[in-house]
Amino acid sequence: MTRQELFENIKRKNSFLCIGLDTDLTKIPQHLLSAEDPIFEFNKQIIDATHDLCVSYKPNIAFYETEGVKGWISLEKTIDYLNENYPDQFTIADAKRGDIGNTSKMYAKAFLDKMNFDSITVAPYMGEDSVTPFLEYPNKWVILLALTSNKGAFDFQTLSVDSKKLYQQVLDTSKKWGTSENMMYVVGATKAEMLSDIRSIVPDSFLLVPGVGAQGGSLSEVAKYGMNKNCGLLVNSSRGIIFASSGADFAEQARAEAKKLQMEMTELLKQYL
Amino acid sequence: MTRQELFENIKRKNSFLCIGLDTDLTKIPQHLLSAEDPIFEFNKQIIDATHDLCVSYKPNIAFYETEGVKGWISLEKTIDYLNENYPDQFTIADAKRGDIGNTSKMYAKAFLDKMNFDSITVAPYMGEDSVTPFLEYPNKWVILLALTSNKGAFDFQTLSVDSKKLYQQVLDTSKKWGTSENMMYVVGATKAEMLSDIRSIVPDSFLLVPGVGAQGGSLSEVAKYGMNKNCGLLVNSSRGIIFASSGADFAEQARAEAKKLQMEMTELLKQYL
Repeated sequence: MTRQELFENIKRKNSFLCIGLDTDLTKIPQHLLSAEDPIFEFNKQIIDATHDLCVSYKPNIAFYETEGVKGWISLEKTIDYLNENYPDQFTIADAKRGDIGNTSKMYAKAFLDKMNFDSITVAPYMGEDSVTPFLEYPNKWVILLALTSNKGAFDFQTLSVDSKKLYQQVLDTSKKWGTSENMMYVVGATKAEMLSDIRSIVPDSFLLVPGVGAQGGSLSEVAKYGMNKNCGLLVNSSRGIIFASSGADFAEQARAEAKKLQMEMTELLKQYL
Repeated sequence: MTRQELFENIKRKNSFLCIGLDTDLTKIPQHLLSAEDPIFEFNKQIIDATHDLCVSYKPNIAFYETEGVKGWISLEKTIDYLNENYPDQFTIADAKRGDIGNTSKMYAKAFLDKMNFDSITVAPYMGEDSVTPFLEYPNKWVILLALTSNKGAFDFQTLSVDSKKLYQQVLDTSKKWGTSENMMYVVGATKAEMLSDIRSIVPDSFLLVPGVGAQGGSLSEVAKYGMNKNCGLLVNSSRGIIFASSGADFAEQARAEAKKLQMEMTELLKQYL
């Protein structure tokens, strides 16, 4: 998917919502556990109930890997279901991969080619040759970790390197590897006040913003400091939407939570775009 | 496995060799492709031919993920085969994972509990809460990226933060999260001259050293600057051993290459231990 196509979807749906599919077998409704593939069944019902309110889905790969081969089957069925039925959704493999070149190439093939995700989250620590193999697929995206939403972000990401913070250096250096047409950045909503500074370094790039909801970030702050002329934001909510209810009405309640965010986003798009 | 047990294995086998199972379907001998599970068949024959010469095996998870569900089955069969037949091998899931706490917890469960690897490689960029969930399993290990063997290591890892390099800061900070009994570090053999400096920060820790062989690092340099009184080194070779031959004699040739390294290691252990 191109940046322009993503922007068109955002305008058409009045939404820059990404729904995180952190599908945890211990948290899904009991009645689904008797399904042949409970994880996929849960995802399918969540997706069917929310697809018109969001522009992106983000399976969190850890939640699939932890179920081994079965989890991998659920993951493949989920991405196939999205690609077949909702090809306008920007799909994100939240995998946080990154290794030496010949190994990153294998991860890229797994997620961007074989499973055909639109994008993958990548960790920057190993530098250029760990990231560029993911940039070799046309209209696919790297979403590079810059400033994450967790407490540990302050251990290294905000350290001063020369006259900058490390995450600023990551933004600066990685601009030489890709463009705003094939690279986005992860910036946590819990650090919204740092967004205007980030915008000065990457004015045109899309930012994937986790941490709204369960982690405590504010959507209006994110829009205020982070939105650019092409919106430039994908704001993710996972647990707050998909586990809104653990009863038979889980999909309906997930829709209700997604709708709240989407309505707020509609107002913010009017205000800032 | 405890540090003492690992050290006993090293002394008994006169080897600190780790063999990387970067099993690439396009590089394994043609005659194996008709096997029911070519990747597992290849790994099994490599393991059977080399187990007495090494103390560790390190499947590179990307090479399994790239084959999807089939690859995941091959991976599980490989770790099961190792745990059942060669329980004295220190097994490393070379996965380079790391995410917010609740997600790292899922990766930890996948690799250290369900698959029962002894250890997993972890990326430090997201800080403490991305690493500590992997430390909750007794006698299991985090192998944290410090200074990697690739060119991109110089993009961020060697930047100056305050009065140190970033990788030194990673070593320093992470010492508060774990001990030399549950945390090792990745230090590339291509940067052997930096090992004495690293030893001053983590004198007792084991170091996993990739980059000998295909990537050009020198084993004798690594031992000279990196060995401590408990050896403290696991030196990995992947392609140089497992793809020594692409013919019917691949296992025999792999053994020959492993033997060369093991004999060199025997001498180095005599010299420095």
